[in-house]
Amino acid sequence: MSAERLIYLPLGGAGEIGMNCYVYGYGAPDEERLIVVDLGVTFPDMDTTPGVDLIFADISWLEARKDRIEAIFITHAHEDHVGAVGLTWERLGAPIYTRAFTGNIARRKMEERGAPETAVRVVQPWPEVVTAGPLKVGFAPISHSIPESSGLVIDSPAGRVVHTGDFKIDETPVLGEAFDHDLWREIGKDGVRALVCDSTNVFSRNAGRSEAVLRPEIEKLIASHDGMVVATTFASNVARLKTLAEAGVAAGRSVCLLGRAMRRMVEAAVEEGILTDFPSVVSPEEAVDIPRANLMLLATGSQGERRAASAQLANGKYQGLELKEGDLFLFSSKTIPGNEKGVIRVMNALSEKGVDVVDESDGLYHVSGHANRPDLQAMHEMLSPQILVPMHGEHRHLREHVKLAGERGIAGVVAVNGMMISLSGNRPEVVEFIESGRTYLDGSVQIGALDGIVRDRIRMALNGHVTVTLIVDEEGEVLGEPWCELKGLSELGRSNAPLVDVLEEDLSQAIGRADRSVIGNDDKLEELLRRVVRQSASDEIGRKPEVTAVISRLS
Amino acid sequence: MSAERLIYLPLGGAGEIGMNCYVYGYGAPDEERLIVVDLGVTFPDMDTTPGVDLIFADISWLEARKDRIEAIFITHAHEDHVGAVGLTWERLGAPIYTRAFTGNIARRKMEERGAPETAVRVVQPWPEVVTAGPLKVGFAPISHSIPESSGLVIDSPAGRVVHTGDFKIDETPVLGEAFDHDLWREIGKDGVRALVCDSTNVFSRNAGRSEAVLRPEIEKLIASHDGMVVATTFASNVARLKTLAEAGVAAGRSVCLLGRAMRRMVEAAVEEGILTDFPSVVSPEEAVDIPRANLMLLATGSQGERRAASAQLANGKYQGLELKEGDLFLFSSKTIPGNEKGVIRVMNALSEKGVDVVDESDGLYHVSGHANRPDLQAMHEMLSPQILVPMHGEHRHLREHVKLAGERGIAGVVAVNGMMISLSGNRPEVVEFIESGRTYLDGSVQIGALDGIVRDRIRMALNGHVTVTLIVDEEGEVLGEPWCELKGLSELGRSNAPLVDVLEEDLSQAIGRADRSVIGNDDKLEELLRRVVRQSASDEIGRKPEVTAVISRLS
Repeated sequence: MSAERLIYLPLGGAGEIGMNCYVYGYGAPDEERLIVVDLGVTFPDMDTTPGVDLIFADISWLEARKDRIEAIFITHAHEDHVGAVGLTWERLGAPIYTRAFTGNIARRKMEERGAPETAVRVVQPWPEVVTAGPLKVGFAPISHSIPESSGLVIDSPAGRVVHTGDFKIDETPVLGEAFDHDLWREIGKDGVRALVCDSTNVFSRNAGRSEAVLRPEIEKLIASHDGMVVATTFASNVARLKTLAEAGVAAGRSVCLLGRAMRRMVEAAVEEGILTDFPSVVSPEEAVDIPRANLMLLATGSQGERRAASAQLANGKYQGLELKEGDLFLFSSKTIPGNEKGVIRVMNALSEKGVDVVDESDGLYHVSGHANRPDLQAMHEMLSPQILVPMHGEHRHLREHVKLAGERGIAGVVAVNGMMISLSGNRPEVVEFIESGRTYLDGSVQIGALDGIVRDRIRMALNGHVTVTLIVDEEGEVLGEPWCELKGLSELGRSNAPLVDVLEEDLSQAIGRADRSVIGNDDKLEELLRRVVRQSASDEIGRKPEVTAVISRLS
Repeated sequence: MSAERLIYLPLGGAGEIGMNCYVYGYGAPDEERLIVVDLGVTFPDMDTTPGVDLIFADISWLEARKDRIEAIFITHAHEDHVGAVGLTWERLGAPIYTRAFTGNIARRKMEERGAPETAVRVVQPWPEVVTAGPLKVGFAPISHSIPESSGLVIDSPAGRVVHTGDFKIDETPVLGEAFDHDLWREIGKDGVRALVCDSTNVFSRNAGRSEAVLRPEIEKLIASHDGMVVATTFASNVARLKTLAEAGVAAGRSVCLLGRAMRRMVEAAVEEGILTDFPSVVSPEEAVDIPRANLMLLATGSQGERRAASAQLANGKYQGLELKEGDLFLFSSKTIPGNEKGVIRVMNALSEKGVDVVDESDGLYHVSGHANRPDLQAMHEMLSPQILVPMHGEHRHLREHVKLAGERGIAGVVAVNGMMISLSGNRPEVVEFIESGRTYLDGSVQIGALDGIVRDRIRMALNGHVTVTLIVDEEGEVLGEPWCELKGLSELGRSNAPLVDVLEEDLSQAIGRADRSVIGNDDKLEELLRRVVRQSASDEIGRKPEVTAVISRLS
């Protein structure tokens, strides 16, 4: 028995905010029976992942242990927790347990990628549990910013682990389950071996604010405007959509949902019986005929996404609807770091149309879905765990969260992706380092972050590209002249002649001077062509381009 | 006389924050004598300008009217105001007037680009004026976040224009000239035709805070730490450097400057006699031997720039200095939108070293250099202009600033880059639209933003690149097989065969089926090769790559 152990292994989400994927296991070393918690995505950017569609955790380690995986649990339906189920399921092949709303979204994700929807199994909340080998796992409702978020209560022979998932302490969440102090005290009362806890807002010193505080301010704002009102928020924040829609109705406006993600979320919430009293909505076709003073649009695109409804409304018409001078646009959302420029672009486009833009900078129109520092402390106090393992945070958040728990005498550990932690003892112990990483969905294929494919794209973006072709005849003599094709490079350089001419001339001279042994050897010849192009371009335009050298040997 | 007019034409900085370049003129239409105010740069990003080194306003309009340019005036030494002097001077060829500190920096910029330093002429502050054709221009000291910032007082036969430059109202700026209410009232007392005014902080509702308020908090923070202290801020904020350095000395620490930009700014401030009492500093070599508790580093890189001192300290050693557990790192700066991810990257790297990071999020360690809304109102009141033209702002800032001035009954106009405004009448009048734009410094050459060069790079980054080569013999028959080289593309596609093989096979088949008239025509054949590659790649990997087709015809 003492040889068995309880392990925690983050593969995504620890040391970053996004692409959550955590593994727990119990058993003899290297024979632990495993469960996976969350299979989320993160989003690409031009700086590091140009052209990539989605990013998720490298699950090779899990795949190699497929026979040991008992089950997959998804805590809630945010993309960074559920977005990769369809992309990874085939390689994991275990049942996916969720609550009803999350399951609704998960099934759509499975279907999109051709994975079986039947793998998704809906579970009732705690105290119902799923037995997954030596582990028993229950979904304990917890407040967040999407319906039916749940913490997981994971019971093992080595004790109880509580995995909070994303959460805040909200007693009046507008929609769905309020934070239930009694429930969480009950969960903690017989002792918690380890609390694996959301760390996102550990630097936010003030107590978190409830979703319900927004209602009066949003009502006031909407009532004070005569033109059309548009509001954007995260599509999955169904409570916020309800607040916004009801405030619109209270101001005598018909409500119209714009954007597929938003309609989908509302639809899922209605289907699962969570959203029973959402105001009736009008279609965009109907909206066109409604006076501006009586219309409110709820639009996707709070992060400035170029193709979302908000950006399209800002740049022109969207489904026949057009904004104009005197309309109001509310960002009932925060800007996720990295999205600032996109959001600002939308704001300025709205400004050009004469639309008044209001954002959350005064704190009136948005609240966070994550527990602030005092709320994390409250959770520590409620559960009194022996061990704290911070998750869902960048390194700085994890480190700060360990410090915070330390103030209460709780043993913590900064465990980043790939660090396997034993939770069997009274203190967390690092037992192994696993090779973790990222997988890219790139078009329709999955590629590894370290395959060099994206690196080559970045290099072409930074340096431009030159194709050099050269034909060598049957006797090993160069036939004609080398030929260059440029992409992404200045046409003229320092010598004021076309760059392509300078490159071809320099190549001709270098080839003319080259030894026969170089001409006869593909590698050496390619290396020569590459070197001449890079040197010559560097002299002319101060830049060393990427080079593709093609040598055709006639035979 | 009535045929003459006073014009304002922004070429950069109006409708954006960055690359400031404004033109004023007086004279008969199309014969105005011109002055240029500021020649700044803005910085590239991967999203829109990969590989570009610097961006500045397209000055073609000015260049075509070179003989009408009387002078160039630089308001202050921030990069977005002075950064392009060396890059553009040859095309403008007019004397550059500045105050002493700005001139010191401007001369360095000229020298770097091989432009004559002697073109830079130092002017004493108002009431000294430079006569530039029909205009008289004086430098009126104004507080900002760099020494010797100045507003310009531009007197014309059609009245006085005040161009604020960047400013805040700071009566205790720590270094240099305090905001002088009497001076500005004096400038306004005989009437101001137009106020062309900084708009950056028009959305900041509270009165701005003085540079001097930071001192006690910074002292307290530094005194409370035992390890090494590192602080970063904008290199040009010499007042802040002074505050930080003095706080370090007060805590018994030796001060070491890290990063060329910072040393350069301090050097310039000392050379110009502005900075007379900066604490003596130690070199990095000396710093290595000083106990951590007695050392404070001031480092460049507050925006997370990868090569700056802060990022290097975060990632490893820098000049022999290495951070460790218990050290403190202070960001005495705000993060400029777009730089968030870079700054967060540095913060997390510091966290990995166990360094405590403090930033300005509590408002204790940074104040803005721009006038907030109440301070803008104060300026409107002080100068009582007939016309307000907001500048130095995105569209939303300009629009809001016009509204704000409207509250006082001042006629305003949102004039973005390229809009020529006549200031001759009591209301601003748009008289012409000029083709404005951006020029990129790309390696060592200047290219136009619309040349398509950067667009091609972005496409390669998003879509990857395929080179196809094909040889056609003397009889017009295809010789051998088409050949593909891939860059930035997955090696394997849907059919699990190497993508390159699939592409080559599909090309062979298409060529085999092609009409002789296609094979014989370069354009048609290239189009065929491109189409086949894109279609075939799309089927295999869900992506249509950029294609360079090279057809070699033997003759």
